[in-house]
Amino acid sequence: MKDIIIAIDAMGGDHGPDMTVAAAGLAVSRFADTEFILFGDEERLKPLVEKQAGLAERCRIVHADSSISSDEKPSQAVRKGRSSSMGLAIRAVKDGKASVAVSAGNTGALMALSKITLRTMRDIDRPALASVMPTARGGSVMLDLGANVECSEQNLVEFAVMGAAFARTVLGLEKPTVGLLNIGVEELKGHEFVKKAGAILKEAPLPMEFAGYIEGDGIGKGVVDVVVTDGFTGNIALKTAEGTANLIATLLRKSFRKSWRSRIGYFLARPGLKVLRQHLNPNNHNGAVFLGLSGLVVKSHGGADVKGFANAISVAHEMALNDLVDLIDRDLHTSGWNPRELAALGEGA
Amino acid sequence: MKDIIIAIDAMGGDHGPDMTVAAAGLAVSRFADTEFILFGDEERLKPLVEKQAGLAERCRIVHADSSISSDEKPSQAVRKGRSSSMGLAIRAVKDGKASVAVSAGNTGALMALSKITLRTMRDIDRPALASVMPTARGGSVMLDLGANVECSEQNLVEFAVMGAAFARTVLGLEKPTVGLLNIGVEELKGHEFVKKAGAILKEAPLPMEFAGYIEGDGIGKGVVDVVVTDGFTGNIALKTAEGTANLIATLLRKSFRKSWRSRIGYFLARPGLKVLRQHLNPNNHNGAVFLGLSGLVVKSHGGADVKGFANAISVAHEMALNDLVDLIDRDLHTSGWNPRELAALGEGA
Repeated sequence: MKDIIIAIDAMGGDHGPDMTVAAAGLAVSRFADTEFILFGDEERLKPLVEKQAGLAERCRIVHADSSISSDEKPSQAVRKGRSSSMGLAIRAVKDGKASVAVSAGNTGALMALSKITLRTMRDIDRPALASVMPTARGGSVMLDLGANVECSEQNLVEFAVMGAAFARTVLGLEKPTVGLLNIGVEELKGHEFVKKAGAILKEAPLPMEFAGYIEGDGIGKGVVDVVVTDGFTGNIALKTAEGTANLIATLLRKSFRKSWRSRIGYFLARPGLKVLRQHLNPNNHNGAVFLGLSGLVVKSHGGADVKGFANAISVAHEMALNDLVDLIDRDLHTSGWNPRELAALGEGA
Repeated sequence: MKDIIIAIDAMGGDHGPDMTVAAAGLAVSRFADTEFILFGDEERLKPLVEKQAGLAERCRIVHADSSISSDEKPSQAVRKGRSSSMGLAIRAVKDGKASVAVSAGNTGALMALSKITLRTMRDIDRPALASVMPTARGGSVMLDLGANVECSEQNLVEFAVMGAAFARTVLGLEKPTVGLLNIGVEELKGHEFVKKAGAILKEAPLPMEFAGYIEGDGIGKGVVDVVVTDGFTGNIALKTAEGTANLIATLLRKSFRKSWRSRIGYFLARPGLKVLRQHLNPNNHNGAVFLGLSGLVVKSHGGADVKGFANAISVAHEMALNDLVDLIDRDLHTSGWNPRELAALGEGA
């Protein structure tokens, strides 16, 4: 078994080092093959590491003078952030000192620093942010979740390839089904770049099964394993789903508090409701991935708790173990298919 | 009190005339001032009307030879559909014989026929589809829900004006707050046309309060009264929300059936859960409106039941009572503000 080294931005996230170090402690007990590098304020991190059984022996602290705040602009982060805990964690991946970096810090900054430090893979035009969404069938990969506001058909096709490779890794599927998010399943609807991407994916000999268009309600149904869309639509769909889940949770709590009868009912139903809570708890789906870079970076929710951040570390571990960057590269190139032929395939659209 | 005449496409929707006529029967008892014209197969409609107490005296049947199927393309509908039950109902509005038309039929066909028959209002470039979404604060208007895939900043500003007028009517608010759906609340993010619309709305002296950008999770929270977005994003947000609600309902049912303990808990909590069911039942929010046409058209869910279609009729009644077309026209023109000045306002963006 190969050795995996996970670089952690220990200062990122709403709950800071207390949370990130405790999560590393949890992860140490899960993965016997894994070592950690924690980037951040050494004085703060040292006593926290010592509190976690078994962590000190399998982890190294690298001091960083600064950290990036949640309201910092990406352009500032690029200028000043390279020596921050986040910047150094990404740098470790670039230099081959770590297999993957994990951060719960500022998304825009993480994206900008990752792009500039790691660069995109060969034949990939733009990296995308991907994550697993809860569905009626378990979970589906969705991308792009906000890295690219404007997309071309070429971008969507690349997202499909990268998303399928990610689904094979995190969902363990051999030949994932892929759908393009659209406003109807008929071929005549939607943006031009979506229709052109559809025409390309129908023809391209890729290691996936292209299932055509899916509508917004198909995400929750889990009609495909991979949902592909531009970063604007994907971000809004993701957050609309979260907002709806929160709304229902609020109404549910209100309902259960309505009377003594309801309260007793809730008390009895509570153990059964655990499934629902588990399925919808964002911490259990935590860990969005930047796909398409020459190196692995995982983004945790800023508000993640210990369990949530440990989940993001698990996603990072899974990706590193499966060499996701190589996998995507192989998918793009070794199926006897040249990505440069993409444009030609789409011309019939 | 003015007389309101509602034109109903009695053949539209998954449940057809049985459902539409029963809904008209329900509406007759609600609105003393209202008359109905039912368009459709006279032989089928007549006995159904007679079964509804009080309906026959306040309703007229106009025979239509054909109806538009749910899989008909908009272009076909425009060619052949003018003499259909849907086409004739819209025509009645155009000719001043009805105040508003209601249909549960094919959305694309209804949109195409409405546009070609009624035309857009003066100074409105494109009509939009608007509806009320359930939120933690009750409900918010959202538009466009799918009428326009590609939008300009000018379109979004018009949607804001129309949506605010609709909110004043259906939500009874004096000065609704309006937000633009975006992928961040900062001014530097998002599509160019969204940013330009934001710059215009900040300056324009309109009868609304512009609250800036909102993110997808702000819809369920109800952070604004009117959510403005392009038709592609709006349609996907709407359906993603529906899909998430369905997913949670499925998980909830599973949870409650998990054990005898859960079943008893559910039995006790059931009356309290009525609030949740009511709030999320799409039938209680049924009735999407085409705004921006020189005439009123309401679209019901195709799968609506009697109560749902009656709700769409109530929305139609409310809009007709408030002369929504005039209201939008006044909002656009009588605030001492000329819509032609829009472009100039946005130039600083």
